[in-house]
Amino acid sequence: MAISYQLEQTSSESRARLGKLKTPRGEIQTPVFMPVGTQATVKTMTPEELKNLDAEIILGNTYHLHLRPGNDIVREADGLHKFMNWDRPILTDSGGFQVFSLGKLRQISEQGVEFRSHIDGSKLFMTPEKSIEIQEDLGSDIMMVFDECPPYPAEYDYVKESMDRTIRWSKRCLQHQKHPEKQALFGIVQGGMYPELRKESALKTTELDFPGYAVGGLSVGEPKEMMLEVLNTTIPYLPEEKPRYLMGVGTPDYIIEAVRMGIDMFDCVYPTRVARNGTAMTRFGNLTVRNAVFQRDFQPIEEDCDCYVCQNYSRAYLRHLIKANEILGFRLLTWHNLFFLIKLIKELRQAIADDNFLAWRDSFYKNYQN
Amino acid sequence: MAISYQLEQTSSESRARLGKLKTPRGEIQTPVFMPVGTQATVKTMTPEELKNLDAEIILGNTYHLHLRPGNDIVREADGLHKFMNWDRPILTDSGGFQVFSLGKLRQISEQGVEFRSHIDGSKLFMTPEKSIEIQEDLGSDIMMVFDECPPYPAEYDYVKESMDRTIRWSKRCLQHQKHPEKQALFGIVQGGMYPELRKESALKTTELDFPGYAVGGLSVGEPKEMMLEVLNTTIPYLPEEKPRYLMGVGTPDYIIEAVRMGIDMFDCVYPTRVARNGTAMTRFGNLTVRNAVFQRDFQPIEEDCDCYVCQNYSRAYLRHLIKANEILGFRLLTWHNLFFLIKLIKELRQAIADDNFLAWRDSFYKNYQN
Ligand SMILES: [Zn+2]
Ligand SMILES: [Zn+2]
Repeated sequence: MAISYQLEQTSSESRARLGKLKTPRGEIQTPVFMPVGTQATVKTMTPEELKNLDAEIILGNTYHLHLRPGNDIVREADGLHKFMNWDRPILTDSGGFQVFSLGKLRQISEQGVEFRSHIDGSKLFMTPEKSIEIQEDLGSDIMMVFDECPPYPAEYDYVKESMDRTIRWSKRCLQHQKHPEKQALFGIVQGGMYPELRKESALKTTELDFPGYAVGGLSVGEPKEMMLEVLNTTIPYLPEEKPRYLMGVGTPDYIIEAVRMGIDMFDCVYPTRVARNGTAMTRFGNLTVRNAVFQRDFQPIEEDCDCYVCQNYSRAYLRHLIKANEILGFRLLTWHNLFFLIKLIKELRQAIADDNFLAWRDSFYKNYQN
Repeated sequence: MAISYQLEQTSSESRARLGKLKTPRGEIQTPVFMPVGTQATVKTMTPEELKNLDAEIILGNTYHLHLRPGNDIVREADGLHKFMNWDRPILTDSGGFQVFSLGKLRQISEQGVEFRSHIDGSKLFMTPEKSIEIQEDLGSDIMMVFDECPPYPAEYDYVKESMDRTIRWSKRCLQHQKHPEKQALFGIVQGGMYPELRKESALKTTELDFPGYAVGGLSVGEPKEMMLEVLNTTIPYLPEEKPRYLMGVGTPDYIIEAVRMGIDMFDCVYPTRVARNGTAMTRFGNLTVRNAVFQRDFQPIEEDCDCYVCQNYSRAYLRHLIKANEILGFRLLTWHNLFFLIKLIKELRQAIADDNFLAWRDSFYKNYQN
């Protein structure tokens, strides 16, 4: 198998756990946050900068790279790692989430999904087999099955049918993959907000024996309590000895709660997206740096932050750059936000190692306002 | 005096020369190219990256910084160096060029120029005294006098009147500056495309005994031959023992010709601006990286370039980033272009040191197509 997971320690007070994920391109400590590199770049950052932040693994987007530059070009470049100059592990999503987000631009059949490119409107067809072939062209270390992610809210019957189709598509992905020894393939649990469908999906997906499992279809607009409850009822059906990945979650409070329930891997555009909107993430909550109140504030974003940005620049300067639409402003806020989130995960890992995760969590929440 | 210039060597075959410019923030080798940091940032780059490229001095824009964030804020931040985290020398322009570029948005009187902000349309008034005060707030190492830069083409009478006013404004700037021992003030020779006015301007400006002289009002749309001829007739009226700065010039061929005539300092947005448009500067001429022909070109921009970009990324990847509007693409092209131009200046200095400037120039032109 391309990857293997080793459970290292479990919190005595919760289901939070520490582990090691061995991949063809090195070992990853879990829980881990994976910065998103949608278009073969984590927006604004060089690979060296990501390493400087201790990013251990990044995400690539199958849908986006298929459309542009085209997976054939990435294959000719000897894969995504070489193309973008990143030699640490890469996980690629399957394109499912993006295709289903296109709404009226797509049509689903048992075979796959017909959709129109958001770039030039051209008609394209994505199937489980095609998704795997693209991900093989990209050469990621971890591939994801091509799933259907139902919207929220959605009727029971629709979600049930969609969940069953995802199971069938998952089997087709498994059968189609060429090099399980080089690229791992993770299954995805769906089932919308219906606990019994989540259970059924988890049981049927784990029966297929993937090297790792993702929980998909959450954080799609449902209330936080509902999301956490669905996650809480899903995780117990996932095997202890495999890594668990919660897709599309990247805010501190969601990450902390999901880790408490036993999640190991996260990805989200949140830290990079809000940075480009002029927002810094801090342990006191978000700081809207572009606000006028920071015009003459010559303090760093966070007094105690050891990041390059907080060591060298003031809120006033960052506000100026953002207001003036300067690329350096987007760079510096992205830098700080990724540093913040990766450091948060390191602290959280240390708290599990010290077996005082719940106390650490409480003290974090005491400061944090979202 | 804040700065001093030492002439080190003169080419035996031309007026090209090597020198050292001592400033309150360190010594600069001349000829030198100054990257432009319009809004308190050299677009896309951190100060550390600029140092990595051996940028010795950068430019700041009085007009832009006056409008945003406001020179009062920069002063409260302890000056532009501290505000933007750059501890090497900074030269600030006077705002004259920007104000006069506003066209119908401004009105000139003997006292100064009334203009409207390009940001919010508010009415503002700039005078020689105001320009100096702003530059003192910014705390640059080299300030420029507030001049009028006539358009091309322009009638003799208009240019004569404008040139005379620039002389009067230059005197007012000199009289108004508070700390000549901390901040140097350079004079600017104007006179449009009329050799006799250039001569008159040079004589009257040098009479005022500035620590350095700029040639302004060139590269404003006139043919290359006219520009070089005007420059050629102007420079002999500038003293040997003071630095000479050609404003707004930044393409290899113009720089080489101006150095041949005895120019020491250059600034231009060209390398950073064309980068953001998807163009790389090379010793063979410009490479429009965004062109389809580079889609599958896995070579670096320049095979022999030692820069970070050429060592790590292909034309195909850079093209992808630019087409996808990714900030990293603008960063990487800016990086390569500044590296290219600064390295060109280093080679040119070496050629003067070896006293084979003309042979070096010929061999450069053999490859270079613009
Ligand atoms: Zn920070
Ligand atoms: Zn290069």
